[in-house]
This record gives sequence, C-alpha cells and structure tokens, in this order.
Amino acid sequence: MALKATLLNCTLKRSPAASNTQALMDRVIGILETLDVECETVRIVDHNVPFGVSSNEGDGDEWPSILDKILAANILIIGTPIWFGVRSSVCQLVIERLDGTYNDRNEVGQYPLYNTVAGVVVTGNEDGAHDAAGTTLFNLTHLGCTVPPNADTYWVGEAGPGPSFIDASGWESDYTRKTAGWMAHNLVHLARMLAERPIPPEGNCTPCEHIG
Amino acid sequence: MALKATLLNCTLKRSPAASNTQALMDRVIGILETLDVECETVRIVDHNVPFGVSSNEGDGDEWPSILDKILAANILIIGTPIWFGVRSSVCQLVIERLDGTYNDRNEVGQYPLYNTVAGVVVTGNEDGAHDAAGTTLFNLTHLGCTVPPNADTYWVGEAGPGPSFIDASGWESDYTRKTAGWMAHNLVHLARMLAERPIPPEGNCTPCEHIG
Amino acid sequence: MALKATLLNCTLKRSPAASNTQALMDRVIGILETLDVECETVRIVDHNVPFGVSSNEGDGDEWPSILDKILAANILIIGTPIWFGVRSSVCQLVIERLDGTYNDRNEVGQYPLYNTVAGVVVTGNEDGAHDAAGTTLFNLTHLGCTVPPNADTYWVGEAGPGPSFIDASGWESDYTRKTAGWMAHNLVHLARMLAERPIPPEGNCTPCEHIG
Amino acid sequence: MALKATLLNCTLKRSPAASNTQALMDRVIGILETLDVECETVRIVDHNVPFGVSSNEGDGDEWPSILDKILAANILIIGTPIWFGVRSSVCQLVIERLDGTYNDRNEVGQYPLYNTVAGVVVTGNEDGAHDAAGTTLFNLTHLGCTVPPNADTYWVGEAGPGPSFIDASGWESDYTRKTAGWMAHNLVHLARMLAERPIPPEGNCTPCEHIG
Repeated sequence: MALKATLLNCTLKRSPAASNTQALMDRVIGILETLDVECETVRIVDHNVPFGVSSNEGDGDEWPSILDKILAANILIIGTPIWFGVRSSVCQLVIERLDGTYNDRNEVGQYPLYNTVAGVVVTGNEDGAHDAAGTTLFNLTHLGCTVPPNADTYWVGEAGPGPSFIDASGWESDYTRKTAGWMAHNLVHLARMLAERPIPPEGNCTPCEHIG
Repeated sequence: MALKATLLNCTLKRSPAASNTQALMDRVIGILETLDVECETVRIVDHNVPFGVSSNEGDGDEWPSILDKILAANILIIGTPIWFGVRSSVCQLVIERLDGTYNDRNEVGQYPLYNTVAGVVVTGNEDGAHDAAGTTLFNLTHLGCTVPPNADTYWVGEAGPGPSFIDASGWESDYTRKTAGWMAHNLVHLARMLAERPIPPEGNCTPCEHIG
Repeated sequence: MALKATLLNCTLKRSPAASNTQALMDRVIGILETLDVECETVRIVDHNVPFGVSSNEGDGDEWPSILDKILAANILIIGTPIWFGVRSSVCQLVIERLDGTYNDRNEVGQYPLYNTVAGVVVTGNEDGAHDAAGTTLFNLTHLGCTVPPNADTYWVGEAGPGPSFIDASGWESDYTRKTAGWMAHNLVHLARMLAERPIPPEGNCTPCEHIG
Repeated sequence: MALKATLLNCTLKRSPAASNTQALMDRVIGILETLDVECETVRIVDHNVPFGVSSNEGDGDEWPSILDKILAANILIIGTPIWFGVRSSVCQLVIERLDGTYNDRNEVGQYPLYNTVAGVVVTGNEDGAHDAAGTTLFNLTHLGCTVPPNADTYWVGEAGPGPSFIDASGWESDYTRKTAGWMAHNLVHLARMLAERPIPPEGNCTPCEHIG
C-alpha cells in the first residue's frame, strides 16, 4: 500500500531563502521515501493564508487547497522554527486554521483528521524544541491525529545565539539523525495500521452541528 | 482480549483526603470498565517515591513496584491537578522517574513503553489543562507511548479561585463528559490494535548501552 | 509626570468585528486613564505587518510606525486571545518582530525596551491564560522590559467551548476585575519609578554589533 | 545599603552530589558578592519539605524556616535543572509551597513577596530553559515579585543527551556569562530601587480572608 505524507514548512522566510527547517524536513523525507511514502511539502508563507479559524476565509485564501492535501494524506508533518522559545507564528496560524476542521466529520462521523498520523520537525539555533513539538503534537491529537512513539525530531544548538541547522551541520548530530529515523519509521508503522484498520467509529463520534 | 490499564493519581494530597483528580479518573475508569478494561489506580503520594531519574533509588523506594504495574498495562493514564498553571510536582516526579526506562529495552529492542497507549486526566479550579496535558502526553511519546486522538479529558473552572471538580459538580460539564468518553474509547481502540499487532521493531530500536 | 501606554491588540479579527480581548483591554485602559496615563491602542491585523524578525521588512511594512509607538511608551501592554491553549499567531508575530530591537540600543547602550514596563491581557473561552501570559511576559523581559507584580489580567470560561468575554459578561468576574486593577496600578507604580530613576547602565550594556 | 539574596537550588540530587545548577548559581553569587549582596543558598532536597500548598505542613516540615529566609531577602533566585523539557519536580514543589503566602499580607496589605525581586538560573544538558525560566518567573510575579529585564541565565547544550554544565565547561559560553552578569546587575538595580522606594500600597492590596 502506498502511503502519502503532507509536510507543512512553517518558516517565516519566503522562498527562495534557505530554510533550516526545510533542511531537516528534507532528511525526514529522504527516509520516508525509502519506506515508499509519497511526500509533498507546502511552504506556507509562499501562499496567501490569512489569519482565521475557519477552513475558508474567502478573498483569495489559498488554505482550502492546502487543507485538501492535509486531508488526503496518511501522515501529517509540521515543521517549525523556534522563535523566542516557542513555535513560529506561521505554525500557530496553521493550527488556528485547522480549527475549521472541527466543523466537519469524516464519512463515519469522526473529526476529519482521525486516522491521520502526526509528526513534528523543529529547528532553532537554541532552546525551545520541547515546547514547540509538544504543543503542536498535542493540538494535533485534539484535531483527531494519532501520535506514534518518538514522533518528533529536532536540532537546536547550545544556549544563546549561534548558527542554525544548515550552517551548524546539524545533521551530524547523532541524536537528530536517530530521532529522524525513529520518527519516520513510526509514522509509517502507525499509518499502515490505521490505513488497514481505521479507528472504529465507536465512542468518538459527535453530531456535526455546523454542517448538519 | 482483556486489556489492562494502570492509572497514576498525582494529587498532592495523601489518602484519605478527597482528590478531585481521582473523582474524574473514576469517571474514566467507569467507562473503561464497560469496555472490559481491568483498571488499577496508584495514588503516588501514598507511597514512598523519592526524587530521582532512575528506576530504583534504593532505600525503601516503592517506585519499582509501581513501574511493574505501568509496564504490565496496555494503557497508562496519568491524572494530575494543576498548580500555578502547570502539572503538579508529583506528576513531574513521576515523569522524572520514568527516565529510568530509557536504560531498558523490551524483548525486541524498543523502549519498554512501546505498545503502551497513553492518556491524561487533568483537574484544576482554573486554567492550565492544555499545558499539563500537552507536556505530559509529549513526554510519554518520548518514552515510547502511542497517543490516540482526543487522549485527554479535563475540567477547569472560570478564571480565578473557585471550587474544584467535586464541589463544582464538574461532571455536569458536557465537554468533560464527552472528552472522557472519547478518551476512554480511543485508548481502548489503539490498545487493542497494538496488542494484536505491535509496532514492528524496524527503525526504532537502539542498543541498550546500560544493560548491555 | 504624564505616562504613556501603548497597547497592542493581537486578535485575529479585523475591525469592525468585536474583539473580546479589546473589551478587556478597554477595562484596563479605563483604570489607567484614572491614573493619568495616556493610552493608545493598535489592532495589529488592521495594519500590514508581515512575518519577519527585523524592524523593517520593507515593501509597505507598517511595523516601523507601530514600533515607534512602542518605544515612545512607558508602559507596553500586549493583549492576546487564546487559540489551542496558547497565545495567538498575531501575538507571536508581534514578539518575532520585536526581535529586531535586539539590534538597537538606547542612548546609554541598553536594549531599547529597558525602562519600559510590561503587562499582558488575555481572553479565551477557556484554558490557556497562564501559558499565553507567562510566555509573553518572559519574552518581554528578554527584550528589556520590567515586569511588576501581578502584571497580567485574564478571563477564561469553564472547560470546553462556550461564550467568550463579551457574551459571558466576563467583567463580572471578581478575579478579572481585581487583577485588572492590580495590573494597571502596578504598571503605573513601576513606570513612574523607572521614569524618575532609570535602570543604571551598569552591567547591562552590550556593544551593538549591527548598528556600530 | 546591604542587600540580601536567598537562592533556592531545586536539583534532584542530595548533597554531596555535584549539582550543575549550583555551579551556575555559584557564578551568579560571585557577581552578586562583588555588588555587596549577602547571599544564602538552600538546597531544597537536603531538607524535609513535603508536598503541599500551605506554609506549614506540620510534622517536621522544614519549609517554614526556608520561607523565613525567602521573606527576609530583597532578591529571590530559583535555580532549577531541566527534566523532560521543563523545570524539576523540586522546583514545582517550591512554587506550590509558596502558594501558602497568598494567605498572608505584608504590613501595608500586599502579598508578602511584594518588593522582592526575582531571577532564575537554569541548567540542562539540552533544551527547555525558556519554559523553565518563563514559567517560574511568571509564577513569581503572581506571588508578588518584580522581574527586572534579563532576569534569567541558563546553559543548555545541543539537542540530545550530552554533558551538563560542569562537564561541558558551560561557563565558557559567552551567552551564559553575559546573561549571568546582566541578571545579577539588574536584580541589584531593581532591588535597590524597591528597598528605597517600595511599591505603594495603592490598588494592589486585598483583605486577607484567611488570617483575618
């Protein structure tokens, strides 16, 4: 069975600026591809995605097509840089936009992200990866995602300003390499399980007030 | 197949003082039992569990027997009150003690908590449930647990001091009831899947330096 | 001496939509005005403020004039709604843009926000105020602000979805009223002290590598 | 005027085990002493301090004498290691015990920690300093403390397991040295101001319901 992964890069920097977060995401993609996962990345700031908490804010909003890719995937990976010890504003915006999915249900009456498996990639020049990853994975479980063991990978440097992932050759970190591998494999293991045997619609459905 | 759940109550108050967190945990247990899960609760402060980051701190440490119950369960639920906006010191102590499991492996070479499914119960008179639940679930994924969708339930009151779960009749909250049910059902769904089909030992094993 | 306060409303909703956060900010402004503080509010989303970490991202960026208001004030108050348990994306964007001030110094060689006193206003329909307020105040101390005792006020409702500050008549909360008053008074007390006796430039200056 | 500082070391390790957190605290003490501050350190785990939220839990509780030292100081510094991305259980316990001070007032009717200036020292082998410092400083503002600019110093290493402060020669970090100096100086600057000119008891007092 072919699995699909959608990866959202929440860097603040528009293309073609180099994104440290993308650099680590690309490593994860490299591993996922060896496991036969078809990967597609969306760099959020390259699109018109306004602030809001609905799935379509109108007026040129490009979120709906991004959301389609998210909902079509077995695996959702959010990549974020750290700013001031927490996830980026763009990452927070993405989570806020996903609030709109609470108004929808899948064909059996669960939130649309049920049976999607979630992971997180974080880079920063220092400190904040636990907060960024933990908050994001938790939010994704509220939205319906399943989180496998060791579902995050990150690189941060020593305390204080310093080079980021690319310039610091962060991929040479044994820890980052190890956790990137674990993350990729466990996302695939759980995604396969859920693709073959979805979470039963027992005890986790709710009437969808908004779309009737 | 019979599933087992171990629940850790991280209240600060020794028995027989009433624990608001236990009151909500008991609601979750009630649902789990209708789903044929055998539940056992440990109230941490009723035991001698010293600070530390190993699985046995010696000298009357009662953690080893608690850890046995954790490792024997399909489902691990941590219940914590909120103090100053975050999880209790006792909850933090429990997580710190679980650090010791990083030195062990299961029979296929994964962390011992692989194939355990995790959930969190939080009560407070106000504010802090997201932080307490999110941090705790994230830590548990690092330790090897899998987190299903909607794996937490909580009750908190309006801003500021006020009655806690029991006195506030928190169980009358539609939200708390709904999420308690979702949590219990999803813990069972995922625990069954993992009991029948454990996470393959591919890409997530690591030599166990400490125990050779 | 007349004190000035600049308040930044980090709601996601553009004017003229009602902002719950503004409603509580207005209560704080009401108290500040009785204490002879001149208050000016900026609703960030009504301006063109792109993502970035510099003080001027060019191309129609309206941040520079907002930053002027921030730097001209004795008191800086950030108001944010809660989304998914944490501060809004717009609030995070504001903090990220303040990163640019690390490249500047005041006339004695300190960060430009030295001698500015900071407070935070938070509203949400439930849970997350401690995280939103604590993270924001901490970031502001890194940027040079001083935080007086009880420098935040918030309103949140009981666990789960529900009415927000305006519809819930949140101002009837004794706790929110009390903390709004404490916050306003303490911001003024400390701002007066620092206006009359600025923090000495001893042990807290640093060469400004960027502007020479 | 002679200033006093009380420092609480929240390491998990009892004396005589080397504490990385103490090693960085000692550097801060070294600077404070050059500024004529009299410093006293309490290593919490060397004392009998039970879990609780009152100022005296009875039965050999040694917190009351520690609290006396805290209340007698102009400067309160909390030092904590990072475990699982957040402050230690011992640090959380200390904050919980300070909850008891909400029941007391100083001679003018404010919380007892008004006019105390707070700082935080954090060490970890990696990631979590912002969360540990931010949460702790925020809690201390609720309790009545004032937080000056740059009131924290920390050292953490690169992502993943690795040597801690002492073995890593963390004091060689320019950032840690710089922030330790800023912190010490700003704590002294603000403590002097508040010693000479306490925060007026206007708008920040509250009847003390508990002690009449």
